[in-house]
Amino acid sequence: MRTGDQYLESLRDGRVLWVGGDRVDDVTTHPKTRAQAKRIAKFYDLHHDPKMQDVMTFVDDDGERRSMMWFKHTDAEGLRRKRVYLETVVRELDGGSTGRTPCANNYGLVTYEEDPAPWSEQSVGTDGRDLTVGIREFLELVKEGDLNCAFAFIDPQLDRSKESSAKSSPTLRIVERREDGIVVAGVKAVSTGTPFADYIHLGVFYRPGIQSEQVIYGAVPANAPGVTMVSREATVRDDPDNHPLASAGDELECTVIFDNVFIPWERVFHIGSPEHASLYPQRIFDWVHYEALIRTMVRAELMVGLALLMTEHIGTFQLPPVQARVARLVEFYQTLRAHVIASETEGFLSPAGLFKPNVLLFDFGRSYYLERYAEMRNEVVDLAGRASLLFPTEEQWNNPELHDWLEPLQSGAVGEPYDRMRISRVIRDLFLTDFGDRVSTFEQFNGTPMLTTRMLTMKRSELSPSGPLTELARRVCGISAPAAPEVTAYTEQAEYARRLDGARAQGSLVR
Amino acid sequence: MRTGDQYLESLRDGRVLWVGGDRVDDVTTHPKTRAQAKRIAKFYDLHHDPKMQDVMTFVDDDGERRSMMWFKHTDAEGLRRKRVYLETVVRELDGGSTGRTPCANNYGLVTYEEDPAPWSEQSVGTDGRDLTVGIREFLELVKEGDLNCAFAFIDPQLDRSKESSAKSSPTLRIVERREDGIVVAGVKAVSTGTPFADYIHLGVFYRPGIQSEQVIYGAVPANAPGVTMVSREATVRDDPDNHPLASAGDELECTVIFDNVFIPWERVFHIGSPEHASLYPQRIFDWVHYEALIRTMVRAELMVGLALLMTEHIGTFQLPPVQARVARLVEFYQTLRAHVIASETEGFLSPAGLFKPNVLLFDFGRSYYLERYAEMRNEVVDLAGRASLLFPTEEQWNNPELHDWLEPLQSGAVGEPYDRMRISRVIRDLFLTDFGDRVSTFEQFNGTPMLTTRMLTMKRSELSPSGPLTELARRVCGISAPAAPEVTAYTEQAEYARRLDGARAQGSLVR
Amino acid sequence: MRTGDQYLESLRDGRVLWVGGDRVDDVTTHPKTRAQAKRIAKFYDLHHDPKMQDVMTFVDDDGERRSMMWFKHTDAEGLRRKRVYLETVVRELDGGSTGRTPCANNYGLVTYEEDPAPWSEQSVGTDGRDLTVGIREFLELVKEGDLNCAFAFIDPQLDRSKESSAKSSPTLRIVERREDGIVVAGVKAVSTGTPFADYIHLGVFYRPGIQSEQVIYGAVPANAPGVTMVSREATVRDDPDNHPLASAGDELECTVIFDNVFIPWERVFHIGSPEHASLYPQRIFDWVHYEALIRTMVRAELMVGLALLMTEHIGTFQLPPVQARVARLVEFYQTLRAHVIASETEGFLSPAGLFKPNVLLFDFGRSYYLERYAEMRNEVVDLAGRASLLFPTEEQWNNPELHDWLEPLQSGAVGEPYDRMRISRVIRDLFLTDFGDRVSTFEQFNGTPMLTTRMLTMKRSELSPSGPLTELARRVCGISAPAAPEVTAYTEQAEYARRLDGARAQGSLVR
Amino acid sequence: MRTGDQYLESLRDGRVLWVGGDRVDDVTTHPKTRAQAKRIAKFYDLHHDPKMQDVMTFVDDDGERRSMMWFKHTDAEGLRRKRVYLETVVRELDGGSTGRTPCANNYGLVTYEEDPAPWSEQSVGTDGRDLTVGIREFLELVKEGDLNCAFAFIDPQLDRSKESSAKSSPTLRIVERREDGIVVAGVKAVSTGTPFADYIHLGVFYRPGIQSEQVIYGAVPANAPGVTMVSREATVRDDPDNHPLASAGDELECTVIFDNVFIPWERVFHIGSPEHASLYPQRIFDWVHYEALIRTMVRAELMVGLALLMTEHIGTFQLPPVQARVARLVEFYQTLRAHVIASETEGFLSPAGLFKPNVLLFDFGRSYYLERYAEMRNEVVDLAGRASLLFPTEEQWNNPELHDWLEPLQSGAVGEPYDRMRISRVIRDLFLTDFGDRVSTFEQFNGTPMLTTRMLTMKRSELSPSGPLTELARRVCGISAPAAPEVTAYTEQAEYARRLDGARAQGSLVR
Repeated sequence: MRTGDQYLESLRDGRVLWVGGDRVDDVTTHPKTRAQAKRIAKFYDLHHDPKMQDVMTFVDDDGERRSMMWFKHTDAEGLRRKRVYLETVVRELDGGSTGRTPCANNYGLVTYEEDPAPWSEQSVGTDGRDLTVGIREFLELVKEGDLNCAFAFIDPQLDRSKESSAKSSPTLRIVERREDGIVVAGVKAVSTGTPFADYIHLGVFYRPGIQSEQVIYGAVPANAPGVTMVSREATVRDDPDNHPLASAGDELECTVIFDNVFIPWERVFHIGSPEHASLYPQRIFDWVHYEALIRTMVRAELMVGLALLMTEHIGTFQLPPVQARVARLVEFYQTLRAHVIASETEGFLSPAGLFKPNVLLFDFGRSYYLERYAEMRNEVVDLAGRASLLFPTEEQWNNPELHDWLEPLQSGAVGEPYDRMRISRVIRDLFLTDFGDRVSTFEQFNGTPMLTTRMLTMKRSELSPSGPLTELARRVCGISAPAAPEVTAYTEQAEYARRLDGARAQGSLVR
Repeated sequence: MRTGDQYLESLRDGRVLWVGGDRVDDVTTHPKTRAQAKRIAKFYDLHHDPKMQDVMTFVDDDGERRSMMWFKHTDAEGLRRKRVYLETVVRELDGGSTGRTPCANNYGLVTYEEDPAPWSEQSVGTDGRDLTVGIREFLELVKEGDLNCAFAFIDPQLDRSKESSAKSSPTLRIVERREDGIVVAGVKAVSTGTPFADYIHLGVFYRPGIQSEQVIYGAVPANAPGVTMVSREATVRDDPDNHPLASAGDELECTVIFDNVFIPWERVFHIGSPEHASLYPQRIFDWVHYEALIRTMVRAELMVGLALLMTEHIGTFQLPPVQARVARLVEFYQTLRAHVIASETEGFLSPAGLFKPNVLLFDFGRSYYLERYAEMRNEVVDLAGRASLLFPTEEQWNNPELHDWLEPLQSGAVGEPYDRMRISRVIRDLFLTDFGDRVSTFEQFNGTPMLTTRMLTMKRSELSPSGPLTELARRVCGISAPAAPEVTAYTEQAEYARRLDGARAQGSLVR
Repeated sequence: MRTGDQYLESLRDGRVLWVGGDRVDDVTTHPKTRAQAKRIAKFYDLHHDPKMQDVMTFVDDDGERRSMMWFKHTDAEGLRRKRVYLETVVRELDGGSTGRTPCANNYGLVTYEEDPAPWSEQSVGTDGRDLTVGIREFLELVKEGDLNCAFAFIDPQLDRSKESSAKSSPTLRIVERREDGIVVAGVKAVSTGTPFADYIHLGVFYRPGIQSEQVIYGAVPANAPGVTMVSREATVRDDPDNHPLASAGDELECTVIFDNVFIPWERVFHIGSPEHASLYPQRIFDWVHYEALIRTMVRAELMVGLALLMTEHIGTFQLPPVQARVARLVEFYQTLRAHVIASETEGFLSPAGLFKPNVLLFDFGRSYYLERYAEMRNEVVDLAGRASLLFPTEEQWNNPELHDWLEPLQSGAVGEPYDRMRISRVIRDLFLTDFGDRVSTFEQFNGTPMLTTRMLTMKRSELSPSGPLTELARRVCGISAPAAPEVTAYTEQAEYARRLDGARAQGSLVR
Repeated sequence: MRTGDQYLESLRDGRVLWVGGDRVDDVTTHPKTRAQAKRIAKFYDLHHDPKMQDVMTFVDDDGERRSMMWFKHTDAEGLRRKRVYLETVVRELDGGSTGRTPCANNYGLVTYEEDPAPWSEQSVGTDGRDLTVGIREFLELVKEGDLNCAFAFIDPQLDRSKESSAKSSPTLRIVERREDGIVVAGVKAVSTGTPFADYIHLGVFYRPGIQSEQVIYGAVPANAPGVTMVSREATVRDDPDNHPLASAGDELECTVIFDNVFIPWERVFHIGSPEHASLYPQRIFDWVHYEALIRTMVRAELMVGLALLMTEHIGTFQLPPVQARVARLVEFYQTLRAHVIASETEGFLSPAGLFKPNVLLFDFGRSYYLERYAEMRNEVVDLAGRASLLFPTEEQWNNPELHDWLEPLQSGAVGEPYDRMRISRVIRDLFLTDFGDRVSTFEQFNGTPMLTTRMLTMKRSELSPSGPLTELARRVCGISAPAAPEVTAYTEQAEYARRLDGARAQGSLVR
């Protein structure tokens, strides 16, 4: 299994990265990137910690100990074990303030692993090449090396008011087909964590008007010739005392420029079919959303904990109105837990034998989080009151002129005065800094935003009026079932895509 | 197992019931009560339906087939089986429009069955009598006869602004202690479904200032001398065509007057200890709340179904804004499902070996329902639009002068014109009649209202700042754990009560 | 001015009305209609009450005392005076439980009065007749007689999923054009209060696909040959003791059938132009929405008052959490007040010299009400607790066997026991009966529903990105103003329609 | 009238300020403070701008032109004029991102000016000195010099779970009484904008347990010997290109240490009476809350504008779901406008002849803002989508290697590519930076937080069940008015305090 040092070493590979006006030469040493590089290194090292061994690793069929990243869950218990792993990583890495860990990134590869055939078969313009060979080889490669494959799926935000705009866009596209591979040019608009990845995992989200040559799924090394990563302003702060979380790294959203980048056929997973892009790849993000739900559950637990600690420290915890508000935060956390656990209990076996969590439950769990988050964030800040806004800096605390005046202001019902500053700092870093705002905003747009997720879920889950969800209503109303199984927008979807939804489980007598 | 006819026969026992100005002589024939009596009879008959046998019954250790009411669940699978039973009853009886079925009522007896000792031991004023003998005998009696025991726990709403008011209240109290039993007098303010019960299950909710002689737990036959049930105005309608649900019965909230009613010691479960009343009996309502959560989950499914059927019929289903709104209803339903399923998966073994669902999960599930219900009800009505308000009556539909004018107004994208009227009628009965409003309001106050439930949950679930929920926050903040296990309001509670919370499960490394 | 008796007399005119299965011969005596007839009679009589004279009437330019219905407000003070009149009618008639009073109905005629020319000029198929003569004559007629003109604007709910359905619908249409008038046939789907009106005020809401021959504005006597009113089930209760509000009348939504009804040209206001229907008539409902906002403001005041009285009576008023909840109800009321008052202060002069309230402010005020109402209704019921659900009936209260047991249950911190029942009854009638649910639902769909109102408001109020609302944002961002005044969807609308919006007031330096 | 340069000069006065670890020698030049100093200087200069003269200044009774800060509004029109001034300042100074401008700070002095007598008369421990002379003198001084008086009212957050903690706190207190004045020692916990003020305006918010010697109202120069200001970490950024708003200044919350500071009696307004502190000073913050409501109204306008500009630029503005969401933002803005305007229209004359806006309306307006803000902020960010998170920095944009790749990503339906970056930057600065989060949080705690404001409003506004708000409910219920005018918590308050509420206006026949 990869170590942190091996990982850091591998990052010094000539990749081209801009952060603001800085051209970063070495992501492991530059002040805008080194903290995040270290955080991912820590991720790898956790696997080598003997105390964490049972949670972080497993022994595969060949007797080899591997990261739980690669664990194949074939039943509810296995899925639960995988979840405990994912949850542990979130807990160990600052309570959910980094979203694109290798285990989160690589979870998206499961969909290829399960069923690579349609990716190859639905391709257009491959001259009949069998892409599944390359897919399998690549998956083996990343597994053996514990590599980290960052998503680059999001295309430029085109003017949706003009139909023709997709055509003239700078969207990444195939500009040449060669015997040994393809050449692509253009940009991927948003890609998170790419500066810290081994491979860029190319893909697309379907949108009306997408062109065949823009449909590209494959893998490109982060340091491939022609690849330039252009990051937004970094939010990381070089001040661990005052900013315990914000100093721990920023994974950086980048626009990735591909200036005629060559991709050999062995790294091409699919090209050419907008129809395929609308169905199957969307299921890749099922895994992203399930992992995101786990992370947001942990984050909610952290929010409850902060509210409890802070209200205890400032002495308001016992007040009934405060308890009623903290109860709402606990409810927020418990509801997310309920979705995680129930989606596991109600999982189903995919055609390839993977036990997959219930799609409706984790999708609506995530939607619940996104709808409530702004209010809950506000509650934590409001419960902390002024303690979220104004408290001494480390330097002031250590200044003998000021210390004795400031200390009594931090003294509370319970615990040390300095503890209040610790809690204040975490609340500030999470909710009242550009660092924290970026983490929140990332969840808002991670994969697909809430409204899109809801709309897509409505489409794919047999939620049609002729489906199982109206059985009870029909009975109570005294309306007979539809004569023939109706053809819905959903049933018209490719069977290979629908197999990944497990929606049939909905049809049982009692759900 | 009891049949519907046996049940109906038993109701003709001289019980004293007022509904509005009417003195009801026979609840099985009076127009204000007969529909509900028939509905409960149907409940019993369902157990004899061969097609339902697997869901509705089980074979006990002595080889006897019994109602699933009496099934003892000792693991998650058993609990799930019990839930399927409870869910089925809700589905069969009009989608959740009656809350106090025998299986719901009797679920509250589980707490005595598990652990009768503290009830007897904590009693005050029994001269050392062992009440557990009577408790066990009574539980056997109701099981053998499939009897129906309605709760009468709610005391008069006293002036909370006056401390002394508890003393001078008309609250039920012990007025005499005799060798063979006690005599009680006063009222229970609210008791639902009592006119259709065999026994009145007496109890109290703790409140500050409650007097020792007001603390009474026991059982009284519904036709006991001195018992008078005074019901609110009935909401049942004698018009099944126009009101398919509202005609199916009203379970009636009653004030129950006890005019010096004698209760033999064998039917007394506990008397005299306000302290006991504050802890243990509250756990009785855990079962009520779990059952209520199941019912509200089914109700949410019905709401989704009605919205789907109606928007399909009026042709709005495919409009994106409508889909977005229906998705919120689906989310409402899925979140309730998540709480039910997760509370089962995360259940625990009580000291007596019963597998009990996770308290936090079902309590916050119910709180979620209550917080969202008003909005969701409004959504269903709004999505139906005018079709919820104005549609032909059965008489108008059958009137040849009017029919041909009215029929086209009911014609939709799919299905028969008459079907729209069926859906409209159910929506109206559920949401726009006194019948439906009463069903909604019942859930609001069932057991304990939302705010009370939240506050009680905060108290009992080790949600203190020194408990497991702050572990992660402490770690992220860098704050050490409290030196010694703190004594909280919760840990000060009687151990026998805490055993029924399963809160220790919260302490595991990864929740 | 008309008296109540004159009004009642006029209703006995042979009009054809079905309520459920009943053919109502005389609306002033039939138990389903007489209460509402009396309520409208009371409306007329209020104008003759000497104590109310200053509020209810005014002296016109010819020295004649008239109902404030006909008052022409030419400045903010005049508008305020009209509002006080409308508000008073709502207060006197059961706190907002009837929406279609004559003064509400007739307010919709203002738009014709202001500017009848476009109605005539835009007509198609009138052979050049000048319809303004008839319009003016009709307005004079209703003013002289204090007549009551009920809206019938809503067409059948067609299958929106089929484009062609408008064509084949039973929607009212012109079937014959004659020298002396037109003959119409078909139905108006929803018309409220028609059984209690003198005239049916025909009109249409624009919808895509509407046919020229379906565009009809005009007036038809309620007893015209060929007119049949088919009402939904009535919600009125013949029990004033137990149902003080629900017994006071139900204004009845009707489907109105026109079986080849003749309308002379003098009663035709406009025909034939879908374009006109999309712009101008929509402004008719400005007055309806302003009046509705006033009514909902009074209704909110009633809700606050009920919450205060009930929590005082049950003794919870002083509890801080209860105060916090009541404060939210007060906020609900104050916000509606703010919209009413501000819309008056920010009003503008229409081209015809009428002072019109600010459209944005009353539209968004109404939208605020509709968005919050379900929650606020729930709060009132929840604050009342069980007292909203279970309380003695009048018969039980008067029953000597029961009275002494029941009285203490109604005793509270303040006031008489019987008073609690009075409050409970009003809360029940308003929120927990089919009567109350219908009143709430009426507001939901009155004129145009919330979402439609919002969308239409976005269209007409110069809310475009090139309009005044982005001035500040442009300045803060450092973006220059659009080069030329842009042509927006709004500016493309007919100038005669835009004149009724007063949106230019938005362009002032400081709004 | 003071000029910006005069103001800047006056700040170089030896005041002692710590920002983080830095001891700031000159606030006009230090990088953490100079931008804010310049912003306040700009405030002063606006008064000298001939184009702004009519809005920014007035001519007083002595013929002298003064800042509108000092304008005395004696009717609704005057109040409106003052509001336009306050609104203009907010617009000119970055759309509401600084809250403690001189005109906002000094508005709080109005309460002394109106009625200084009770401040002096209620004092305890002044040996009968007449403090009104000093109050008047000080008010004259600040008016003549256009000085800026920052509030320092907030005491340390004591452990509310311990009754005794107020006693042992570091709260500012009188430690010595001398012939010529008092000596105070201790801290004021939170004071905003103090580093940029001439005077520190001392005061207290009442809290249970406050000691007589902690009740101090008066004025202290910001550079008085013994005064040390300790600011939180500054959020200002020295990068106007990328951070147009965040670079414009941070007003800094400070803890202010008073190390035996002498205050002459001429600068003492009140000392010693907790009772007085509970009633009258609270009315000082009426002006703060009214001003805050105006600022939040402008801020809401800015939010609407940003949403319009951004959705127009990314081409989503015409999509119906987007329009529906923008409509909610417009509603947010219009509702705040409604409260501002209605509170002016419904104002009243204070005893001293000042026209004061309606307290209920502006308090609930502010409460409306605070309750909705988190959601609305989230909407703006969500509508902007990724454009709020990832966009080129100025340096990247100007980098010839990158520019041609990045430009097309900023191209939209309308306007220049660079404009999108301008909008993105403002959205980021306002909502996704520590700068913006601080501005939002300031509003949350400005004066009194939402819940406190609501509770205090419930107390003082004759909102009791025996007051005018139940008149309608009593009538509808048929309940008679309370026999005698009840003594409520409100009527028991000092008459001099109640006079500032204008609540009597509530008692009119029609509100």
